[in-house]
Amino acid sequence: MTSTEDGFNNADSLAGLDLTVVGLGLMGGSLAGALRGKFRTVTGVSRNEETVGTALKRGLIDKGTTHLIEGIENANVVILAAPVRIIIRQLEQIAPYLPNGCLLMDLGSTKTDIVKAMEKLPDHVQPLGGHPMCGKEKSGIDVADPAIYKNATFILSPLSRTSDAALELGKAIAWESGAHPMILEASRQDFLVATVSHLPYLMACGLISSADATTSVDPAAWQIVAGGFRDTSRLAGSDVTMMVDILLTNRNEVLKALQVFKKQMETLENLVAASNESDLTHVLTGIRSIRKEMYP
Amino acid sequence: MTSTEDGFNNADSLAGLDLTVVGLGLMGGSLAGALRGKFRTVTGVSRNEETVGTALKRGLIDKGTTHLIEGIENANVVILAAPVRIIIRQLEQIAPYLPNGCLLMDLGSTKTDIVKAMEKLPDHVQPLGGHPMCGKEKSGIDVADPAIYKNATFILSPLSRTSDAALELGKAIAWESGAHPMILEASRQDFLVATVSHLPYLMACGLISSADATTSVDPAAWQIVAGGFRDTSRLAGSDVTMMVDILLTNRNEVLKALQVFKKQMETLENLVAASNESDLTHVLTGIRSIRKEMYP
Repeated sequence: MTSTEDGFNNADSLAGLDLTVVGLGLMGGSLAGALRGKFRTVTGVSRNEETVGTALKRGLIDKGTTHLIEGIENANVVILAAPVRIIIRQLEQIAPYLPNGCLLMDLGSTKTDIVKAMEKLPDHVQPLGGHPMCGKEKSGIDVADPAIYKNATFILSPLSRTSDAALELGKAIAWESGAHPMILEASRQDFLVATVSHLPYLMACGLISSADATTSVDPAAWQIVAGGFRDTSRLAGSDVTMMVDILLTNRNEVLKALQVFKKQMETLENLVAASNESDLTHVLTGIRSIRKEMYP
Repeated sequence: MTSTEDGFNNADSLAGLDLTVVGLGLMGGSLAGALRGKFRTVTGVSRNEETVGTALKRGLIDKGTTHLIEGIENANVVILAAPVRIIIRQLEQIAPYLPNGCLLMDLGSTKTDIVKAMEKLPDHVQPLGGHPMCGKEKSGIDVADPAIYKNATFILSPLSRTSDAALELGKAIAWESGAHPMILEASRQDFLVATVSHLPYLMACGLISSADATTSVDPAAWQIVAGGFRDTSRLAGSDVTMMVDILLTNRNEVLKALQVFKKQMETLENLVAASNESDLTHVLTGIRSIRKEMYP
């Protein structure tokens, strides 16, 4: 291990460090796989013995254990990959057992509560919030796939106590996973993901329940759904435990994003109701240009 | 041509019939290509000479013309592929020139207004509303692709005056294009597509303008958008002229679908606002099950 008092001075070289990923679901399992071979060892921790077995069999980890403390007590880097509120509990549980200078990261989707909990960690630990902007509709170790990190944006939310070296190591981990690190302060990240991630999820759910209401009147609706419906509703298939955890730990920002969305929908509704063809065309053309600029 | 007084008694055999497709955009150009070789001849009509040239060069039609009446006056089957309000104008224009027993179909996305206009056609014409549930974000002859009809649902809306033979021929056309015909009365189709097609479009537009509002506060939002945002917003890239035409010719059903959606979103919002974890989990789990049943 090449560390200084500050933390790490050799961020580019993970090869001398031991990593432990706690939580071997889609995100943790995939990240472990993406970083295996880049760290000296990658250890996976899961409460579920079968999950550990699958992660080993799939070659995503070098070693595995169901024992949380045993899994982390010799690690140079620990990454917590669980729903936000579980991460917050784990921080408290593992804090006394973390080695001196250990980098403690997480993959939680909302950052304000986690970073607040990280502030209370003992001084010998270097905390760093993380949130990779990737995923899948499906969850669990069976669908874990290191490739999901490829070219994803990996948000890093440092605390004021996070050392430069620890942040550099966090960036190196993001790069080595195939992603692009992006530094965002926790509250700013939570504001932004409310619009670009949590709002689309709720919209997709609202669409499915609207279609469900329509099919209770006329079940033929299911027979005529096309690709547009499928894509717009895709996120409604996301893991519910994870999404509830996200919505409730980012409640204020989610509610604000819903208000903005409601206002935009009202504008569109009013133009349709008024059969205002020229303004409707103008507004929709502007929206289309923005979309085309994002995805040329 | 194998026809009877009623219309057609040899629906399975298109090989002795001449087809004209009026409008060589994405939908018309693709359908012409899908049916070429199945009809004796496929003629394409476009106001734009270059479009006719491209359709010929791409092998989507056998013959082409920019002259509407010349294009349709010897056809056994005419299919109008344009925005709804243009189709309604074309019906009136071509009616006196259509051959005796001619099947006149359309591909318009909303059916009530078109079917109403079709009622006024002269008795020697067999009218049949049509709406294939397929498409692309992009439009125009350059992106025309016969494969878009493959396995799509092809809605057919017969009028009370439409003969059985004409409906059978319409079904044969749908099958031969690669799609599955589905009979739906015009007003019922308009009610259903408002939810499964027009609502998702408006939602996608509302999402883009919400994100635009957010980025005016913090432009970093564009940098962290992931696959979920891309899919949920995909329909906002649809052709605006076509969508405005659809929204305004299906205004009442679209407004009703928006009310249903608003109510569903309010339910979700209230559960988040109340941090009601158990009910939120219950509702989102039900929605997820519906989505999973649709797309296993």
